[in-house]
Amino acid sequence: MADLWQEAMDHAVAVARKAGELIIDSVKEKFPKHGFIGEESVAAGEPCVLSDNPTWIVDPVDGTTNFVHGYPFVAVCIGFAVNKTLEFGVVYSCIEDKMYTARRGKGAFCNGDPLQVSDQKEINQSIIATEFGSNRDPEVVDVIFSNMRKILCLPVHGIRGAGSAAINMCMVASGCVEAYYEIGIHCWDIAAAAVIVEEAGGVLMDFEGGPMDLMSRRIIAANNKTIAERIVNEIKTKQ
Amino acid sequence: MADLWQEAMDHAVAVARKAGELIIDSVKEKFPKHGFIGEESVAAGEPCVLSDNPTWIVDPVDGTTNFVHGYPFVAVCIGFAVNKTLEFGVVYSCIEDKMYTARRGKGAFCNGDPLQVSDQKEINQSIIATEFGSNRDPEVVDVIFSNMRKILCLPVHGIRGAGSAAINMCMVASGCVEAYYEIGIHCWDIAAAAVIVEEAGGVLMDFEGGPMDLMSRRIIAANNKTIAERIVNEIKTKQ
Repeated sequence: MADLWQEAMDHAVAVARKAGELIIDSVKEKFPKHGFIGEESVAAGEPCVLSDNPTWIVDPVDGTTNFVHGYPFVAVCIGFAVNKTLEFGVVYSCIEDKMYTARRGKGAFCNGDPLQVSDQKEINQSIIATEFGSNRDPEVVDVIFSNMRKILCLPVHGIRGAGSAAINMCMVASGCVEAYYEIGIHCWDIAAAAVIVEEAGGVLMDFEGGPMDLMSRRIIAANNKTIAERIVNEIKTKQ
Repeated sequence: MADLWQEAMDHAVAVARKAGELIIDSVKEKFPKHGFIGEESVAAGEPCVLSDNPTWIVDPVDGTTNFVHGYPFVAVCIGFAVNKTLEFGVVYSCIEDKMYTARRGKGAFCNGDPLQVSDQKEINQSIIATEFGSNRDPEVVDVIFSNMRKILCLPVHGIRGAGSAAINMCMVASGCVEAYYEIGIHCWDIAAAAVIVEEAGGVLMDFEGGPMDLMSRRIIAANNKTIAERIVNEIKTKQ
């Protein structure tokens, strides 16, 4: 059994690498001067810094744990920034076969159909998406559980987590959850979906209530400012 | 906005009722002597007792909160018991368009393809499904969070919750999560999926490690006894 598991893991790593190489190689060929940021490039020692240069922010497999287990939320994420501003985002939810796309100022779409966030302004009538994350340090887990409990007992209708930051954000864009927040995510998990949320009419916010910083490793994505600020008021980044 | 919400809620209630009536009326016409158990019949004052009589255990909309919000996990559940033994189960995950079926001794299927639970025996390599539930009493929430934290920090690969007991159980049957546990569910949430889990090779267990009692409002559904017993050892029904 352990062998079978290892085989699946190895396969997952190999496929993720192949998908990442496919994306980066094909873009490098077509746009040789553009930069890249992604888990693979950062792991290979390249800097995780967003410059003014046109930059592709790529996650070939968002939701790696889901991917390995076959849980049906796995996404290929491609974001594109120029002068540090995100210009378009593409999130392909492979197992669902949903292609989410957005270009700044041109709207957000799923398989070609326009997306619109929920118009709910009452947090008590909302579903909030978040994740337990992969860090099991007691202090980190304390913060995650404390925040979740505060949100749950506002109360809200429910808490959900798809196991993929990008798909949680696309669910905000689709209107089936009102907001998503998480600490610990990377820019490649959220860059593409950030454009999709904004173009579907949603807002992105930092945990202090200011504009989202793509490189800060935390995000609130919500259907509107009212819900986003309500979450800012409840959650903390430390105990 | 509040009016729009009310409209959606009213629509959800009406559709759920219509779906429930459709199921019960058509079965009553074809099998006039059979009994029924379901949220609607119990709400209407009928007893929630499983007799030896052939009994349809029906939930026309499992995942009501999801349904109202458009979160993509909503299921129609039809279980059938004779002499208190579940004979078949049908779970239709409407938005995903997945039809899960199982007849005792004949295997479990999704859209006709056979289902098989995960062969993972290491809880540390597992994804566990559970839910926050709808009860917001502090004592109840305490137990839910305490159990979740223990499971998360075993550690496991992740915790997921689809927002539908039946779909969580079908994910156990499909092998994409190793186990699902929950306190507070009703027999109509789990009866149909219980057959599907067992016919996919999984096990059903009470929180004390004995056989599952359909009417006890709690369940562990797992890929195997090893994982189920590991969960029994960790979780409690009270603080």
